[in-house]
Amino acid sequence: MKNNDLQDYSHKRYNILTGEWVLVSPHRAKRPWQGQNEAVNNEKRPSYDETCYLCAGNTRINGEINPKYEDVFVFTNDFAALQSDSPTFNVNDGLLVAESETGICKVICFSPDHSKSLADMSPAEIQKVAYAWQREFKELADNPKINYVQIFENKGAVMGCSNPHPHGQIWSQSTLPNEVDKKNTQQLNYFNKNNSSLLGDYLSQELEKQERIIFENEGFVVLIPFWAVWPFEAMIVPKRQMSNILDMNDAETLQYGEAISVITKAYDKLFNTSFPYSAGIHQAPTDGNENQHWHWHMSFYPPLLRSATVKKFMVGYEMFGSPQRDITAETAVKMLRDLL
Amino acid sequence: MKNNDLQDYSHKRYNILTGEWVLVSPHRAKRPWQGQNEAVNNEKRPSYDETCYLCAGNTRINGEINPKYEDVFVFTNDFAALQSDSPTFNVNDGLLVAESETGICKVICFSPDHSKSLADMSPAEIQKVAYAWQREFKELADNPKINYVQIFENKGAVMGCSNPHPHGQIWSQSTLPNEVDKKNTQQLNYFNKNNSSLLGDYLSQELEKQERIIFENEGFVVLIPFWAVWPFEAMIVPKRQMSNILDMNDAETLQYGEAISVITKAYDKLFNTSFPYSAGIHQAPTDGNENQHWHWHMSFYPPLLRSATVKKFMVGYEMFGSPQRDITAETAVKMLRDLL
Ligand SMILES: O=P(O)(O)O[C@H]1O[C@H](CO)[C@@H](O)[C@H](O)[C@H]1O
Ligand SMILES: O=P(O)(O)O[C@H]1O[C@H](CO)[C@@H](O)[C@H](O)[C@H]1O
Repeated sequence: MKNNDLQDYSHKRYNILTGEWVLVSPHRAKRPWQGQNEAVNNEKRPSYDETCYLCAGNTRINGEINPKYEDVFVFTNDFAALQSDSPTFNVNDGLLVAESETGICKVICFSPDHSKSLADMSPAEIQKVAYAWQREFKELADNPKINYVQIFENKGAVMGCSNPHPHGQIWSQSTLPNEVDKKNTQQLNYFNKNNSSLLGDYLSQELEKQERIIFENEGFVVLIPFWAVWPFEAMIVPKRQMSNILDMNDAETLQYGEAISVITKAYDKLFNTSFPYSAGIHQAPTDGNENQHWHWHMSFYPPLLRSATVKKFMVGYEMFGSPQRDITAETAVKMLRDLL
Repeated sequence: MKNNDLQDYSHKRYNILTGEWVLVSPHRAKRPWQGQNEAVNNEKRPSYDETCYLCAGNTRINGEINPKYEDVFVFTNDFAALQSDSPTFNVNDGLLVAESETGICKVICFSPDHSKSLADMSPAEIQKVAYAWQREFKELADNPKINYVQIFENKGAVMGCSNPHPHGQIWSQSTLPNEVDKKNTQQLNYFNKNNSSLLGDYLSQELEKQERIIFENEGFVVLIPFWAVWPFEAMIVPKRQMSNILDMNDAETLQYGEAISVITKAYDKLFNTSFPYSAGIHQAPTDGNENQHWHWHMSFYPPLLRSATVKKFMVGYEMFGSPQRDITAETAVKMLRDLL
């Protein structure tokens, strides 16, 4: 391989965490765009919106009144996708196979300030969000019916976020979702073979190469993984092997807050817009096992590709074949690093 | 299980073709929608648009002039994601793994009439598209460097379609994409165990139950699979086990045209709009093997959920966990069947 082949020619890269491939077409960034442009809303929101069901003191759809919260506020989702009290059942009718799935869904407001996003908050303010994630994770992990906790945020209307108030969600359930199941298997296989953390070993390699690192502090690295799918996908990885977010000590929660702050601020600068994304934390199942093979991490999947209005569509080929990207991870890193 | 549990309570269903699960939350269709609305464009397009690079007689970006074609017109994509002449290389550097991938990408115009979509074409006109798919598939299958051919269509701006002229694409390549690889494995395992077609056996079960069938003719069934992900996802399956589209005889290509016509027309009626979707044909690899375990099928993944302007977002939980749907396959079938 010539060193530049990955920047010039179509190829596929292997995702060590899922065992799947992404198709990379570096030469394709040149094609003209005649498709849909997203609406941009760079209008500044007020700090309080009386019609917002997440603002402090306001009434939600079910009639409950939000407290006058001062930093983070968590409540159970009024329209949860998972029910905690539904009956247990199984379908095993030839090739029709189904199983009941129960769980608990929560909403977590990051700030009472309606106008903010994580990108506008300080590392110390984000630390309070991390504390709340830890508290919720702990409580759900202690629930014997909950075996996995998915923490995530949808930011921006283009990512299906139905309310601009800064908030995320937690969906927890009794079995492992598809993506977590893949990562569980890949990490377990590696750990059994090498007696070390897959992601930890990957991190050492990346830190040595310095080709895809956006930022690092004492406890965390922000990088674009070699196998990134979304144009500006990024990942925050703790340097120590930790299987879940409870393993962070106090100093580390602040370093984590700084890592989130750095990447979200860089995103906002990239196309001069409040950068939409879905972000999520993948961590060990809460099934009571030790899960030493797990190395938790947080990923950001932002859809924008060329500007505030042109996104990458994961459609046709991507839905039926494999994800496909145009600009390489290495090009994206350079663009983001220049904004720090 | 009580018969209605699947219509009332959160559960997951197993996709026999991919081995993955979809989370179903029937109770959730009731939540209010405060998120993004899509723009609807119900404006009638002209039959010829001089600025369209797919209309007959027009000049494409690379300077080539389209012929004055009368039904279907195929050409090699001017901005192909896969290159046919790039060098072969491998990266095997610790946990960084990549491989060159070559291929051929084509564009196929379904009609010279700029104003039409498959939904506006007769079964006989769609049959000509099926003939073109067969011709292209055959030519690519005969190419020793091509081991898989993905035929697909992105319809509508919301599905990233960059030109409204009725057209689809063909991306062919040397290895199997992720989704095809999963279906290959699942079908092979089943065939080795049962000596019959997984999808054929599933079809028999569905034809007996008549709960998820939208339409059938002599050769084809249109149904919503038990494990459908998208709100109005549908699948066209040949009744005979055929591993690829070349196995269709002449009468069957017309029956296939009728099946496409029926489902796309029903879609357009559902929300009174030109219904966006990505559609794709999954079929056997073109690797020279017999691939008897393959039963080809065409799937439609339409994003709309509640109206012409409100789509289902596959974001946060779906990206990090599993796909999730609100209305059940059985409810969606009833809505579509009422429109035939
Ligand atoms: O080739 P097009 O129509 O310009 O592009 C569209 O389809 C491709 C194949 O599904 C996707 O990779 C692109 O993101 C999408 O915009
Ligand atoms: O819960 P919300 O923000 O209303 O809804 C959003 O996030 C959910 C979880 O990713 C998705 O299932 C929905 O499609 C999306 O619109």
